[in-house]
Amino acid sequence: MTEQEIRVAVVGYSFMGKAHSNAWRNVGAFFPGLPAVRQQVLVGRDGAAVKAAAHQYGWAEAATDWEAVVARDDVDLVDICTPGDTHRDIALAALAAGKHVLVEKPLANTVVEAEEMVAAAASARATGTRAAVGFNYRRVPALALARELIADGRIGAVRQVRAAYLQDWLADAAAPMTWRLRKETAGSGVLGDLGSHVVDLVQLLLDEPVVTASGRLETFVPTRPGPDGAEQVTVDDAAWATLGTASGAVASVEVSRMATGRKNGLTLEVYGDRGALSFDLERLNELQVQDGLAGPALGFQRVLVTEPEHPSLSAWWPPGHVLGWDHTFTIQAAELLQAVAGGADPTPSFEDGLQVQRALAAIADSSERGGVRVDVPTGPTGPTGPTGRTGTED
Amino acid sequence: MTEQEIRVAVVGYSFMGKAHSNAWRNVGAFFPGLPAVRQQVLVGRDGAAVKAAAHQYGWAEAATDWEAVVARDDVDLVDICTPGDTHRDIALAALAAGKHVLVEKPLANTVVEAEEMVAAAASARATGTRAAVGFNYRRVPALALARELIADGRIGAVRQVRAAYLQDWLADAAAPMTWRLRKETAGSGVLGDLGSHVVDLVQLLLDEPVVTASGRLETFVPTRPGPDGAEQVTVDDAAWATLGTASGAVASVEVSRMATGRKNGLTLEVYGDRGALSFDLERLNELQVQDGLAGPALGFQRVLVTEPEHPSLSAWWPPGHVLGWDHTFTIQAAELLQAVAGGADPTPSFEDGLQVQRALAAIADSSERGGVRVDVPTGPTGPTGPTGRTGTED
Amino acid sequence: MTEQEIRVAVVGYSFMGKAHSNAWRNVGAFFPGLPAVRQQVLVGRDGAAVKAAAHQYGWAEAATDWEAVVARDDVDLVDICTPGDTHRDIALAALAAGKHVLVEKPLANTVVEAEEMVAAAASARATGTRAAVGFNYRRVPALALARELIADGRIGAVRQVRAAYLQDWLADAAAPMTWRLRKETAGSGVLGDLGSHVVDLVQLLLDEPVVTASGRLETFVPTRPGPDGAEQVTVDDAAWATLGTASGAVASVEVSRMATGRKNGLTLEVYGDRGALSFDLERLNELQVQDGLAGPALGFQRVLVTEPEHPSLSAWWPPGHVLGWDHTFTIQAAELLQAVAGGADPTPSFEDGLQVQRALAAIADSSERGGVRVDVPTGPTGPTGPTGRTGTED
Amino acid sequence: MTEQEIRVAVVGYSFMGKAHSNAWRNVGAFFPGLPAVRQQVLVGRDGAAVKAAAHQYGWAEAATDWEAVVARDDVDLVDICTPGDTHRDIALAALAAGKHVLVEKPLANTVVEAEEMVAAAASARATGTRAAVGFNYRRVPALALARELIADGRIGAVRQVRAAYLQDWLADAAAPMTWRLRKETAGSGVLGDLGSHVVDLVQLLLDEPVVTASGRLETFVPTRPGPDGAEQVTVDDAAWATLGTASGAVASVEVSRMATGRKNGLTLEVYGDRGALSFDLERLNELQVQDGLAGPALGFQRVLVTEPEHPSLSAWWPPGHVLGWDHTFTIQAAELLQAVAGGADPTPSFEDGLQVQRALAAIADSSERGGVRVDVPTGPTGPTGPTGRTGTED
Repeated sequence: MTEQEIRVAVVGYSFMGKAHSNAWRNVGAFFPGLPAVRQQVLVGRDGAAVKAAAHQYGWAEAATDWEAVVARDDVDLVDICTPGDTHRDIALAALAAGKHVLVEKPLANTVVEAEEMVAAAASARATGTRAAVGFNYRRVPALALARELIADGRIGAVRQVRAAYLQDWLADAAAPMTWRLRKETAGSGVLGDLGSHVVDLVQLLLDEPVVTASGRLETFVPTRPGPDGAEQVTVDDAAWATLGTASGAVASVEVSRMATGRKNGLTLEVYGDRGALSFDLERLNELQVQDGLAGPALGFQRVLVTEPEHPSLSAWWPPGHVLGWDHTFTIQAAELLQAVAGGADPTPSFEDGLQVQRALAAIADSSERGGVRVDVPTGPTGPTGPTGRTGTED
Repeated sequence: MTEQEIRVAVVGYSFMGKAHSNAWRNVGAFFPGLPAVRQQVLVGRDGAAVKAAAHQYGWAEAATDWEAVVARDDVDLVDICTPGDTHRDIALAALAAGKHVLVEKPLANTVVEAEEMVAAAASARATGTRAAVGFNYRRVPALALARELIADGRIGAVRQVRAAYLQDWLADAAAPMTWRLRKETAGSGVLGDLGSHVVDLVQLLLDEPVVTASGRLETFVPTRPGPDGAEQVTVDDAAWATLGTASGAVASVEVSRMATGRKNGLTLEVYGDRGALSFDLERLNELQVQDGLAGPALGFQRVLVTEPEHPSLSAWWPPGHVLGWDHTFTIQAAELLQAVAGGADPTPSFEDGLQVQRALAAIADSSERGGVRVDVPTGPTGPTGPTGRTGTED
Repeated sequence: MTEQEIRVAVVGYSFMGKAHSNAWRNVGAFFPGLPAVRQQVLVGRDGAAVKAAAHQYGWAEAATDWEAVVARDDVDLVDICTPGDTHRDIALAALAAGKHVLVEKPLANTVVEAEEMVAAAASARATGTRAAVGFNYRRVPALALARELIADGRIGAVRQVRAAYLQDWLADAAAPMTWRLRKETAGSGVLGDLGSHVVDLVQLLLDEPVVTASGRLETFVPTRPGPDGAEQVTVDDAAWATLGTASGAVASVEVSRMATGRKNGLTLEVYGDRGALSFDLERLNELQVQDGLAGPALGFQRVLVTEPEHPSLSAWWPPGHVLGWDHTFTIQAAELLQAVAGGADPTPSFEDGLQVQRALAAIADSSERGGVRVDVPTGPTGPTGPTGRTGTED
Repeated sequence: MTEQEIRVAVVGYSFMGKAHSNAWRNVGAFFPGLPAVRQQVLVGRDGAAVKAAAHQYGWAEAATDWEAVVARDDVDLVDICTPGDTHRDIALAALAAGKHVLVEKPLANTVVEAEEMVAAAASARATGTRAAVGFNYRRVPALALARELIADGRIGAVRQVRAAYLQDWLADAAAPMTWRLRKETAGSGVLGDLGSHVVDLVQLLLDEPVVTASGRLETFVPTRPGPDGAEQVTVDDAAWATLGTASGAVASVEVSRMATGRKNGLTLEVYGDRGALSFDLERLNELQVQDGLAGPALGFQRVLVTEPEHPSLSAWWPPGHVLGWDHTFTIQAAELLQAVAGGADPTPSFEDGLQVQRALAAIADSSERGGVRVDVPTGPTGPTGPTGRTGTED
């Protein structure tokens, strides 16, 4: 397996491009048994800027034309770190060219796009081409451990999940207008940005889809200063949802960019009939565990998830030597390489990404309909009904 | 003022009766400037048991007939610690007899009852008779401080509240049936029991009523073992709500008796446009403060609310010598005595209690209607529909 | 047993007198099986002030002459809450008069006084008269649980204790001079005041005496403003010690009144060869437990010590309804009453109190001798050697 | 400046070699304005193993002969990650060859060695050759911020530091013998390993040397299983010290490999006369701040040290996206490159490393002498006694 080399192209070189570049540069140093990575080319629209970024982040080349890049023979994997409105086009082209694809979350801006991408991934899969979506928080070792503990029955059957993802970078009403606050460019506000992570984690941890959703979206600051005066904010800056899963569990979700004092506050509490788990991304090396198989529920145990037997940890440092946020992307790269090398389907799949989109669309739809509970379709991809319940974009 | 003596009767001698007895026994030792309290009589149905309890808790007498007690000349204040379905009758009788009344929360089991009690309190007020409802968590010094900080503008205009009250005493599906799990006796499940505290605190902290509600109630364990086999649980054991306030703030609420590992987990996060606050009842002497007037929001300050200048603290111990849960009832008693002595209306009033009931009824109503947002009436008491729910959109 | 009545006199009515009065007023309400308490008389030097305090705190009478009080026939128990320099005289008189005695910590100001008190208590014991010293933190349920867990082998053999008691009320160099800062009145500074608690807890938890001590005392603010200008501070305002126990464990101790931001920061960490415990008095309802019998040491479990099976907790409230600082005195009173009623010796005994004094004296002695380790005598009371190692007051 | 390239050789390829390789591989991606790094050669004794490591960690070559490597023309900087007993020889050779040197902490195994290295670094400095010691925890942004806050007077004059570094990897008495537990190979036990970090941080934060020390060393498990039966442990596995600084501050230090449940528990509390700071390496992105310039000391503020204005943070990710342990080495590399490029002396210098060694030697010396306080020499390097300890007993 170690003979193999994967030549990677990353499209996008800002925040996510930097994080993914870091992962490709380092994955081999920590996961030596995997195919070697060659940082082939970094792609961006601004030639000078992408050239500088490529140099800084360790890429052999820079390029400005993604369509040319995805067609190159010396590229094996295309990693898409661009804004959501370009995901579908790049992914479809790359898959059609036989390249493995990693798409930064959310999978797409609409359910319709996501469904097209799922169809393309399904076709590509038949020829051994792999597709994955980049929900990197699945790779936080503490959350991977949480999933293991739940799967092992350590908290029993899950009844309730209490989840939030709170930031405060828009709390100041004087913060200026950006493309992220316009529906036509961003597709969605905090719901798509942070809510997508939360929904993915709920579905991951419970290993089942969300099937009903009740939602409320709010825009607390309706206008913001633009270069030519006040502009209308057309996306949500906070959102709430109550989700039902197939097994009857209920998850509450709150996401916000207005939660003063919260910087990257992704918190999860999972309550089973025998035990419970709790997590906070700002302390990402820790998992609070109420182990239902270890006696009465007298209190949460703070597990520092840095032991060699913890998920992915044997690749890193001795116990107590904590990981940072960016390590999750390195682990994500490792798991994708392993799938590619092993001829297996990576996770999360485009189907997983689609299912997140469907839940988000249902939340938005419910909000428009006064909060009434709506169903989230979970079957195979197909035409959706005229109600718009599965697609806010109809 | 100190010449005055208030002769108290407490009705009920179990959990709440014990807590209120403790308050009456101790209030004078910590708040010496108030009217003296005489622990006149403890009332309960079981003569032997109430006699033993009266002896234990420091009451001069025990009695079994509350109707006789509320009519006695040597009783000035009736403190009602019985289950919710008797609140109205006792309160109305006591007010009619010119006694001051304290009613343990929730004010009543239905909005209709609560409205009757409000009307009675309004009449009594005209003759200087006082009525209050016992939302003791208002008296947690950290929450009283929270209210002050918000009123002083220290966190700016509140946009979001994230609240929960989580316990786990019913998480075990084998826990037996009790009267608390039957609608006919308990009126409501966790929503009325714990949710009433949360709604009261939201309205207190924001100093405005909840005006819309979307809710979901859930009964995770639908039957429980009774003496003669499985019995149906007819109340909720978990509930969720998204509430809107008059000013446009949104509060999310989650309450549960199934949250494994949470013993008395009342948590509140309040996000304003300049700062934020956070509280956890399991650490009730602490308030986490993000002071919006003290620079950028870089982190929460853990304030140990035990300084002499903190609310009610000068009555107690030196800094760092923490209070317990039961001290909140002593402070509650002190504030009621102060109102009585000063000829002022105590808080929270029956009107406050009614407003909580209305919000709870709206949440339950929304749940039955698929989660759609309903209005919460806030005007003066008026005729209500026959259901006892105040007619949220019907 | 319940027929018995214990008539109590408390000497002293300020901070500790208030706390002890609270305990005597409430002990019967929570521990009903014990002898009834009669709050007979409160004693103080200022007649008007003690009369007011007696009224406020629930005492039948006030008195100013402690010598007369301890001789009264209608007093069964004398509870000494005065400054340390009067402990010996009052205790000896009370014991001689056949009264049970409770002495607030520290037992005495000097080892010599403590030895006399031990001798007196030993004589009194022969006639069924009981003597105890008031190290109330032994009654914190979390610390009582800690002791149980250690005794049950849950953390294995203890190797290290890391302890501190940090306050900040003298951190401001402008804080005025008080009698507490003069050696002639206070005997000692923070070492005797807070250090005595820490040493007692170390000896309690490990169930063995401290046998060696190395110490350092420091006075960071050597003069403070008095009414007539700057005065010399003649006691320590911070102290450090490294203590060895009989079994070979080592305890580090740090106490300070200068630790800015710490209000009542008594923290203990106990490391055994299989597990560990951690405690913080500012969160006194919690014990962090690393249970050595429950698998590998992956993290501390936060136990909320409010379950009915936890020490003393069945007397109080349901799980999660936390206790405060003052409850420890009520539990202390209950344990003393139980010993008196049962004809057993209460703990901590005067011998325990003496052993604390000896360790404190050794710490101070070591400090004067450049920090060199000195032995702490542990045998029966007798004349001490000329080195001064067992007595700072020679 | 960016034109320059620094060709690096790392000697050692296990734990520290991996961590330093990671730093050299990544420093350019985060600190683009610095000289480019070329990962020239990785050096180790086992040819096959070092070749594999070099490949894995991104080095152009592997080598087994460090003496040849330090003499190579195509090496500009030698980074020494070997055990302490080889530090002097490699460093002296490299400096003599005109190479910049980074030595992993502790600087050396003895004070004598450290003094020789200081002399060599002083000579090299004259020709622009730079030498630094790798106390990477100086590069934890929260600790760099702590230093800034103290230097800015935000906590006033420091009086007390309470420090510990607690691990538990030797708590199990059955853990096998290793070279780390033999004095001849390891030089010291936990004192040199973890204590050196603590002493360095104390001297860094207070910006002054430790001048007196009282110490106690303990070996709780005196023998451990070796391949041929039980072997004697000849180093300390726990140590305590009370240190005095030039300005009169006192620091308590506790280090242990036996602290069950602590994985990498470096904790620091710094108390000034106006404010305080607290830090825990297991939560290395956080600093608890009691800002003395922001009002009364009511509680610690949890600052998430991830804002762009925090030390080194502008190089990394947006607020709330936390760093890990290994990032500290990358920052360390950046600061060294900056010094080299700017013609400035890097910190911590060999002199800083020597001063740590002197304090450690004094602690060990004090322990052997019963804990009595000894002086720590702080003057310029001079002849020392034959023991290698800098004459505390002279």
